[in-house]
Amino acid sequence: MNEFDFIERLRRHAEKRASAPELVRGIGDDAAVIKQFSGRDTVISADLLIENIDFRLEVNPPRLLGHKVLAVSLSDIAAMGARPRWAMLSLGVPQEVWETNFVEEFYEGFFGLADRYDVRLIGGDLSRTGEKVVVDSVVLGECASGESVSRFGARPGDCLFVTGALGGSAAGLRLLERGASLGSHEADAADIHAIQDLLMRHLRPEPRVGWGLVLGEEHLATAMIDISDGLSSDVHHLCHESNVGVKIQSASIPADPLVAGLSGRRALDPLMLALNGGEDFELLFAVSPDNISKLPTRVDGVAVTEIGEVKPAAAGILLSEGSRDWDLQPEGWMHFK
Amino acid sequence: MNEFDFIERLRRHAEKRASAPELVRGIGDDAAVIKQFSGRDTVISADLLIENIDFRLEVNPPRLLGHKVLAVSLSDIAAMGARPRWAMLSLGVPQEVWETNFVEEFYEGFFGLADRYDVRLIGGDLSRTGEKVVVDSVVLGECASGESVSRFGARPGDCLFVTGALGGSAAGLRLLERGASLGSHEADAADIHAIQDLLMRHLRPEPRVGWGLVLGEEHLATAMIDISDGLSSDVHHLCHESNVGVKIQSASIPADPLVAGLSGRRALDPLMLALNGGEDFELLFAVSPDNISKLPTRVDGVAVTEIGEVKPAAAGILLSEGSRDWDLQPEGWMHFK
Repeated sequence: MNEFDFIERLRRHAEKRASAPELVRGIGDDAAVIKQFSGRDTVISADLLIENIDFRLEVNPPRLLGHKVLAVSLSDIAAMGARPRWAMLSLGVPQEVWETNFVEEFYEGFFGLADRYDVRLIGGDLSRTGEKVVVDSVVLGECASGESVSRFGARPGDCLFVTGALGGSAAGLRLLERGASLGSHEADAADIHAIQDLLMRHLRPEPRVGWGLVLGEEHLATAMIDISDGLSSDVHHLCHESNVGVKIQSASIPADPLVAGLSGRRALDPLMLALNGGEDFELLFAVSPDNISKLPTRVDGVAVTEIGEVKPAAAGILLSEGSRDWDLQPEGWMHFK
Repeated sequence: MNEFDFIERLRRHAEKRASAPELVRGIGDDAAVIKQFSGRDTVISADLLIENIDFRLEVNPPRLLGHKVLAVSLSDIAAMGARPRWAMLSLGVPQEVWETNFVEEFYEGFFGLADRYDVRLIGGDLSRTGEKVVVDSVVLGECASGESVSRFGARPGDCLFVTGALGGSAAGLRLLERGASLGSHEADAADIHAIQDLLMRHLRPEPRVGWGLVLGEEHLATAMIDISDGLSSDVHHLCHESNVGVKIQSASIPADPLVAGLSGRRALDPLMLALNGGEDFELLFAVSPDNISKLPTRVDGVAVTEIGEVKPAAAGILLSEGSRDWDLQPEGWMHFK
């Protein structure tokens, strides 16, 4: 049983419980949604990050890690079209890490991002661990009642969009695994900036908070998910929840141009990373044709790209290359297979 | 720097941020409190539990562990005088544990307790870890606006109460460390039931949800905390937040009678465990003298005991034995010293 099957079972189990009229959305989305009887809904998301699975202390500087754990949760809240408000952070560190400046720098990175979006740290937990650092980041957001954007509202005929560029984070991870490091200048001069930028895409992702708010508050997205596992997997999640299919135009996928620019022994496959790389924390969303003209060109300097069209479920989940269509397999990140 | 000093620093750091009028209570209590503009407040708590620090797979059966991680959070919500409503659970397990029935049994225990209190699992995260199991349990509760019970409202002259009996959980842990196990019958016949009951006090604690609701909804407690670290430490937390002192009568402390009943090589010190043992998840609370007569005798079969009196801060935190008063040192659990 893989993790998605298991979560599906948990969800059915939870849904068999006594009905809860205030529960707008439970297990099965980027965040849960609770109705507050005051014209507002509360949106809440949790992300568990584990040393040597989700990050490595040798490559993730503490300050950037503090930024990233919050960014991951802000991305979930953005994917619900909601405004982030409150954070709870549970942090477990071994004694020897406690005795360094790790914790202090970690929180500096966390507060740096939190302050940009007026997100307030209101609680959490602090624990000793035996060996590894673990973090659980919980963020609460809010939106007008009934106006959160779920994964389930896409309809055939909607157009599929994605913010920013894809594959840069995975490229940064590959470069780190091949020995690149922040601030290192051993590469050819032409590549230095591209490499440093790609490392930062991985180490310090920018959640698309502004786009999430625009798409939610102006009712422009019929369904939305953030790309954390990888486009190929996350489009499957969105299609599964919406009970639709999709045809993505391969040539339209905004593969990160920095990846295409790498050459020689650093060369990587831009399209493969854009499809399956994961951790881009861009937003994937569907828009009714009537609303496409209302989409802003850029939000916070970030553009969007139309990459395909929503189809009936029977059409499947297809990647179109020239005149040929392929089944797009979910090849993104999975904890348990 | 110990963990409480660090949390105090985080709290000052967070409080320097832009003011947030909806934030009733942030870092520094059993749970944070957010005003919802609808006559209700949301109360939210997080508890991080780490394998081999907070539990051991050899001694904590998965079903009881699933119960316990939720119980710990329900206890926090009870200590705020609030009603638990929603749970988020982040669970990290290594591949080899994933392949056993651990996860299934863990959730069975979790749902067993959740159903008793109509708490609904609405989200969380599931992750692979390298070696150890980690759990972060987040519970959201609610109470009437402004009616949550904090740690900071105790006043000199209030009487100090505790629910149930203390020290049983720590005794159960000691017995486990000395080789006792659930269902084992190697002990003398007279001790078998006491030992099994003490093991269950540790492995399957009962949160005082009913007492929390009564004390909160009927405005009977001026301040409250749950006893997770141990009475000696938790009374310090309560006094620090309320800026008061306290005198506890040693003879009044409801040490678990099962502990006093142990004999021979299993004998333990009931008073020491009641003071410093931790994980009892009983409620410690202050009551104005006018309200003592309004306290129910029992809630859900559990009685309360008056153990001392709140004093001005200058009086210190004292344990009174006969005619002598001692400074009560916080000797309970601390992750980092």
